[in-house]
Amino acid sequence: MSTDPLEHLYSRQATGAQPSVIRDICALVARPQMRSLAGGWPDPQKFPVQAIGRISEQLIAEHGDLLLQYGSTEGLLDLRTALARRMNAEGIAGLDADNLVITHGSSQGISLAAQVFLNPDDVLLVGLPTYFGGPGAGRARGAQLVGVNVDEQGMDTDRLQQEIKRLKSAGHRVKAVYTIPNFQNPTGATLSLERRQQLIELAETHDLVIFEDDPYADLRFEGQRPPSLKALDRSGRVIHLRSLSKIFVPGMRLGWAAGDAGVIRRMVVAKQFADATTNTPGQYILLEFIRQGLLDRQIQENTDFYRAKRDFMLEQMDRHFPAEATWNRPQGGFFIFVHLPGDMDAEMLFHRAVERNVAFVTGSPFFVDGSGRNTLRLSYSQVSREDMEIAIRTLGNLIKEQLAGNNK
Amino acid sequence: MSTDPLEHLYSRQATGAQPSVIRDICALVARPQMRSLAGGWPDPQKFPVQAIGRISEQLIAEHGDLLLQYGSTEGLLDLRTALARRMNAEGIAGLDADNLVITHGSSQGISLAAQVFLNPDDVLLVGLPTYFGGPGAGRARGAQLVGVNVDEQGMDTDRLQQEIKRLKSAGHRVKAVYTIPNFQNPTGATLSLERRQQLIELAETHDLVIFEDDPYADLRFEGQRPPSLKALDRSGRVIHLRSLSKIFVPGMRLGWAAGDAGVIRRMVVAKQFADATTNTPGQYILLEFIRQGLLDRQIQENTDFYRAKRDFMLEQMDRHFPAEATWNRPQGGFFIFVHLPGDMDAEMLFHRAVERNVAFVTGSPFFVDGSGRNTLRLSYSQVSREDMEIAIRTLGNLIKEQLAGNNK
Repeated sequence: MSTDPLEHLYSRQATGAQPSVIRDICALVARPQMRSLAGGWPDPQKFPVQAIGRISEQLIAEHGDLLLQYGSTEGLLDLRTALARRMNAEGIAGLDADNLVITHGSSQGISLAAQVFLNPDDVLLVGLPTYFGGPGAGRARGAQLVGVNVDEQGMDTDRLQQEIKRLKSAGHRVKAVYTIPNFQNPTGATLSLERRQQLIELAETHDLVIFEDDPYADLRFEGQRPPSLKALDRSGRVIHLRSLSKIFVPGMRLGWAAGDAGVIRRMVVAKQFADATTNTPGQYILLEFIRQGLLDRQIQENTDFYRAKRDFMLEQMDRHFPAEATWNRPQGGFFIFVHLPGDMDAEMLFHRAVERNVAFVTGSPFFVDGSGRNTLRLSYSQVSREDMEIAIRTLGNLIKEQLAGNNK
Repeated sequence: MSTDPLEHLYSRQATGAQPSVIRDICALVARPQMRSLAGGWPDPQKFPVQAIGRISEQLIAEHGDLLLQYGSTEGLLDLRTALARRMNAEGIAGLDADNLVITHGSSQGISLAAQVFLNPDDVLLVGLPTYFGGPGAGRARGAQLVGVNVDEQGMDTDRLQQEIKRLKSAGHRVKAVYTIPNFQNPTGATLSLERRQQLIELAETHDLVIFEDDPYADLRFEGQRPPSLKALDRSGRVIHLRSLSKIFVPGMRLGWAAGDAGVIRRMVVAKQFADATTNTPGQYILLEFIRQGLLDRQIQENTDFYRAKRDFMLEQMDRHFPAEATWNRPQGGFFIFVHLPGDMDAEMLFHRAVERNVAFVTGSPFFVDGSGRNTLRLSYSQVSREDMEIAIRTLGNLIKEQLAGNNK
């Protein structure tokens, strides 16, 4: 962009912004013959197309004037009420419509939370690795990003405590922690109950807020759902962000943020100047989908569907990957995270794989410190079983070849 | 909000943000018996409900997998191409899909442009008065707002020049001008060709960018459309922002931003972290609506419809308002702006009017310097003729009573 005549006029954040490498990779590998384990998009097979068609037909015919008009910035009252009730049932007591704002996906929830809390140079702590939404929203506010190791129990809260102390004693303003507690993107890890409690205590002790990004909450294949951070929150420090993209459809861009009424009011004001209101037809269609009891059924169906895909992927990996590679067994969500043997370079593997029409996402873009060069993310969400089998076999062979070459 | 326990944790912008007084007024007066000239929402009578129902039914049935899936951050390629062609036909040569990003309404376009260009303390020049979207997006970036008088020819570019010089010599970084060139909200004024040229020259001379917010562009009742600022732009300094809300439907939150490819790339990166992508069904439905030739017909119908409403409102005002009040005759858009006699207070009038179930928006919230206390905005967009007649008569009588009281 060096020849851009407006270069000198861009804001510091625009100049420093990093386009999503993951989105770029997904665009690069969008060839028809590609067997892609790269994208984290849901499988359109599971979209409730017929129900949405039927509901939208009826709503447009009967209430087209409401459905196609502007709505309030907060979002449809009945929808917020319905979602608040669902959260009450999840163990978050006392939430009502005033505690929710409907957003254009949880992406927008992260962005609004960042706008409401982060000043330039405030520190935002994020997982190492983490989905890019949190770091991106932080960078857009000029915040400093500091990574904290994520292991199979989620973000390491002992390390987190050390980092907070280190940063504070170095004079930094530590403001917030961004975390994906369930089936984290990209590691698939779930934050343990003990660490959830410790995270809440750290936030209270050090006067922090927590951005709890929970798009996969409802996609649990097995085991008990631990209480959300919001359910454990005693002081209003948790801003809970949810998405309908993985349990309804992503195209309508529906999500919500839940928090104390004061925080939500601030987020609503920020949204007035971000996009005024979330698209109205999507909100009405979702409300009717919930009223007809279809969302719970859809969640059950999606859970069964993606569980079977995960099982198949793990089976193939057990069969084809060498013992020197390691990976997790996620209890939900879309992702398996692989550590390649030793210091094997995932980017080199990526280029070899693409030559054979197999794609994945390298792990390094998920690490704000640029580490993780021997890691990669595999998604079973959108790929067919047939393609998955071939892709995993191909990858396994490439890793073995590389290993053999290294050992020569 | 003084008891908010998180008060001390909010960002400077969140603390300084001003909720939209206009949205608050519109919420306040949303009583069924209210005859409201307050809102600037389009009349749902004119929504192409049947066509949208037919198109969405067909698209969901045939392409539900695409329609309900995530899309690219830029927006649907075919839609961007179609909109670029329309802009070429409007006299903006050389634009293609790479020059456009589809946004959630022009509101989001303003927000993204502000993110890309404004640093804290940069000066954003805005009309005095102006729609709150520009100032709100500027405040969200921590920019300083400076108002420049708007008269019947639009923003006064001589005054603008003086302000720029004054600000620069006082050491300020003047970065951008936010302007609504056609049928401005709230004044209804259209920027003259001479001033458009002068504005472009000022931007070149003083190294500024222009945010051209043009949601009413297509709603011209009479007279020639002057060339847009983007059409006059020789150096890529104009970011042109459009909305489908007034010529299609507002609920789908569709708009676009057009500019040099480098600027658009920056806005796309900002959008990745704002909400990832614009809702997909809305984009596909709009594309099909354009392909079937329905958008041009809709624009024609809306123009005829709102012209008749404007005519009726002006007729009623001529009949019922005292000669001491003055107002404009807009050539398009939704708004008539009234100067009350002398220093008559519009807020007092507002409260008296609401007692009689008549509502409007006071002018003062549109002035970033807090002036304009004797002004008000009337909208003919959504009110029925019957209600309009009664509301204007009531308002006229209240103004006359107030005048008589003042003259006692």
